[in-house]
Amino acid sequence: MEEKTLESNTVFTGKIITVKVDRVSLTNGWTSLREVVLHPGAVAVLPLFDNGDVVLVKQFRYPVGKVLIEVPAGKLDPGEKPEECALRELREETGIDAGKLEYVGFVYTSPGFSNEKIYLYIAEELSQHEQDLDVDEIVETIRLPLREALRMCIDGEITDAKTVALLSLAFLKRG
Amino acid sequence: MEEKTLESNTVFTGKIITVKVDRVSLTNGWTSLREVVLHPGAVAVLPLFDNGDVVLVKQFRYPVGKVLIEVPAGKLDPGEKPEECALRELREETGIDAGKLEYVGFVYTSPGFSNEKIYLYIAEELSQHEQDLDVDEIVETIRLPLREALRMCIDGEITDAKTVALLSLAFLKRG
Repeated sequence: MEEKTLESNTVFTGKIITVKVDRVSLTNGWTSLREVVLHPGAVAVLPLFDNGDVVLVKQFRYPVGKVLIEVPAGKLDPGEKPEECALRELREETGIDAGKLEYVGFVYTSPGFSNEKIYLYIAEELSQHEQDLDVDEIVETIRLPLREALRMCIDGEITDAKTVALLSLAFLKRG
Repeated sequence: MEEKTLESNTVFTGKIITVKVDRVSLTNGWTSLREVVLHPGAVAVLPLFDNGDVVLVKQFRYPVGKVLIEVPAGKLDPGEKPEECALRELREETGIDAGKLEYVGFVYTSPGFSNEKIYLYIAEELSQHEQDLDVDEIVETIRLPLREALRMCIDGEITDAKTVALLSLAFLKRG
């Protein structure tokens, strides 16, 4: 089933993504071209308070031209461990420090054209401080019950795939 | 909160994706660069049998270098309606015809760098025929109970974001 790389050409190198076009051989004898967006990977972290509330963030997402409601998330810095990144992004985007971080798995967001992999965490034992955003980040936070966040996934108010996945996994694991 | 385009440069035009780098103005007065992968959009469709079984597909995903288990899915052809695409992809990848298609929402897979939008459906009133794959597609199907598929999401055997999202939404809606 595996596809083998016959030829690889990098066609764009950006700040965040790199794009390559590879010629691959298939197990059925055909060859095909694959357009691949290389991404450094990311984390998403759901802060879950003792009373069942979660904190989500609202931010404008330029590629889709809309404000989306998402779990706190961010790209891995070079050499950064996912756990460190989760605590850092949570602190920066929401001002929340977490005493406990549970790894709940990872998702590939677009495996048809990208290697983006997002590590998923639930954060607990939370304490609230100030936001500490990058200069090009404008992020609002909202606190609501986990069950209300799930209703927003069903009703289409939450449409970010990693957020639907992480909220659902948290619900399935914690009930 | 909105970001306005000051300048847009297309840096790669492929068969499937187009990549542009835009300079944008933020509401806080800063400007920033945004790398954007334009994608034609896609559908994902969960075939759900009367007895609670679902059909998933296994295929090698070159960008991540692994065989993944996913809901049947595929890109929109130019001018194609999502519902038509859902029925077509379901038929091609699994050989299943559906008498009923329920729209359950959409997800953005990677809104930080791409506009990819996936329309999600549950297909019912199913009848089984032969697969009809593209020459560069090699796809195996597996039939299993919806609850078993959800367990695979929790256990990390299913890692595709749209698949975790659609299975979870089907479970939350149907119980």
